[in-house]
Amino acid sequence: MERPKVIVVDCTIRDGGLMNDSKFDPETVRAVFQACCEAGVDYCELGYRNSKEMFDPKQFGPWRFCDEVAIRSAVEGIDRKATKLAVMMDAHKSEPEDLLPAAESVIDLVRVATYVKDKNKAIRLAKHAHELGYETTINIMAISHAHMPDLEVMLDEIEAETNVRVVYIVDSFGAMYMDQLHFMVAKYQMHLKTKAVGVHFHNNQQLAFANTMEGIIHGATWADGTLNGLGRGAGNCPLELLISFLKNPDLDILPILGCVGKHIIPLKEHIEWGYHVPYMITGILNQHPQAAIQWMHGKNKHDYVKFYAMADE
Amino acid sequence: MERPKVIVVDCTIRDGGLMNDSKFDPETVRAVFQACCEAGVDYCELGYRNSKEMFDPKQFGPWRFCDEVAIRSAVEGIDRKATKLAVMMDAHKSEPEDLLPAAESVIDLVRVATYVKDKNKAIRLAKHAHELGYETTINIMAISHAHMPDLEVMLDEIEAETNVRVVYIVDSFGAMYMDQLHFMVAKYQMHLKTKAVGVHFHNNQQLAFANTMEGIIHGATWADGTLNGLGRGAGNCPLELLISFLKNPDLDILPILGCVGKHIIPLKEHIEWGYHVPYMITGILNQHPQAAIQWMHGKNKHDYVKFYAMADE
Repeated sequence: MERPKVIVVDCTIRDGGLMNDSKFDPETVRAVFQACCEAGVDYCELGYRNSKEMFDPKQFGPWRFCDEVAIRSAVEGIDRKATKLAVMMDAHKSEPEDLLPAAESVIDLVRVATYVKDKNKAIRLAKHAHELGYETTINIMAISHAHMPDLEVMLDEIEAETNVRVVYIVDSFGAMYMDQLHFMVAKYQMHLKTKAVGVHFHNNQQLAFANTMEGIIHGATWADGTLNGLGRGAGNCPLELLISFLKNPDLDILPILGCVGKHIIPLKEHIEWGYHVPYMITGILNQHPQAAIQWMHGKNKHDYVKFYAMADE
Repeated sequence: MERPKVIVVDCTIRDGGLMNDSKFDPETVRAVFQACCEAGVDYCELGYRNSKEMFDPKQFGPWRFCDEVAIRSAVEGIDRKATKLAVMMDAHKSEPEDLLPAAESVIDLVRVATYVKDKNKAIRLAKHAHELGYETTINIMAISHAHMPDLEVMLDEIEAETNVRVVYIVDSFGAMYMDQLHFMVAKYQMHLKTKAVGVHFHNNQQLAFANTMEGIIHGATWADGTLNGLGRGAGNCPLELLISFLKNPDLDILPILGCVGKHIIPLKEHIEWGYHVPYMITGILNQHPQAAIQWMHGKNKHDYVKFYAMADE
């Protein structure tokens, strides 16, 4: 059956950039954007606009900064149809002054990523971006580590003080089962009377797509996906599965499948995203995936018992 | 939280055998069985006991037939603890006379796999195995293709005529979303007053684990998994995820993780199970994975648009 309208956000280049220091070649970025436009995806997030004071441009590629020039060259000449452009700004790793007024920018949507502890920075940044004319969201990361009283205060302040369109549940660690998700969607809905709820999941327990569906069924109306699930560690909800589920006649899966085969699968030579036991272990232990990502680069990467013992200390 | 007691069945060698003509070397089979015993898994299914008239022993390995001698040599000397041995018999590809009396066999549980259309064969075979002294189940394959009136008659006959302990929902095509699963669990429960409901899912849409959890939450008490999800096409519910979810203090994940790293991951050199777009496509189209498995062996394996067009004809 056809599902209620859900706003679909592709964040392949942005989240995938956490696996390669945002060093995608321009051809890949163009191909992803073009596929999103042809598929009818609502927003395509091309990277972070983070601070060059905090990330060394010699170490990180252009999609960690998303300069206007870089984005314009990536999207130039492509028929955008209805697809809009997004960037993410980490509340604690970006400078508000790096944003131009929206009228001078190619960007439509600024997504502010934050931990609960950085809520003041996030709210300030979201308000600033809104004043400059951008659509805005706040994406609350590591939600499985949030203390409920702090989260409730944060949601109330976002509701009262900002004009963000959406507040996201971000399961950065891939730790959540569905009952926890149900609880969180209800919590968001109770505190956010004028904002939409968004969902962004990681696949450590092979639940990114299942939780995205379940979030939508319980009332989330914005959902993130990435081509073939490309993203940090175990990756994200595969966009192709999300589109297939939504049964929205305005969405076309074929441009996504074509781009996955031509441009995303070849990245597997250098980037190991997807379900792997070390990522699963940090997921079930409700931990940041960084230790697992490091372990996957070591020569004992398949000694899972040793990694489990280390991670569980 | 701790979940209600669920009977866990490992079918790594049996379902994985659909990807390599059941040609596992004895060391791998021993390692899987030993891991199951150490982990506290309830049943370990070492293969099919299918007919040598219908499968050529020159083409298929020993785990397609599970001769008593082969099984005994695989499990000999291992401390079985509470783990029992299972084999599967396809209702339409096996001979009842291939079963010894249970007292003379090393096998505890005979699982009869069947399509709805072969229900008479399945019921006859399950009754025969029960009379010989085995525990029995009937596993209804390709459930996403079942016609409801036929399925209802079948469930009623199984309830009235057999002593099987469990009747399984088997989503062979990896096609089911959760709403369809809820419907099916309720249907089974309505017709099977004296039998347990079991669940066996394929991972074409990355839903094997999610659907297994959801089946358990809705009342299924037998659940299948395989080490690292090894199984036909996209594979099965990863046993390591299932064990982690169950929070049963009698289950230990570490022997499973150890065996995955040492014995299952190396199989990836020759067998390509797990999430791949061609398997996803047959899943969303509710089709048998065979065409996708063939496509994955071709030189255009990543031309997903072409495969989709072919599969969707």
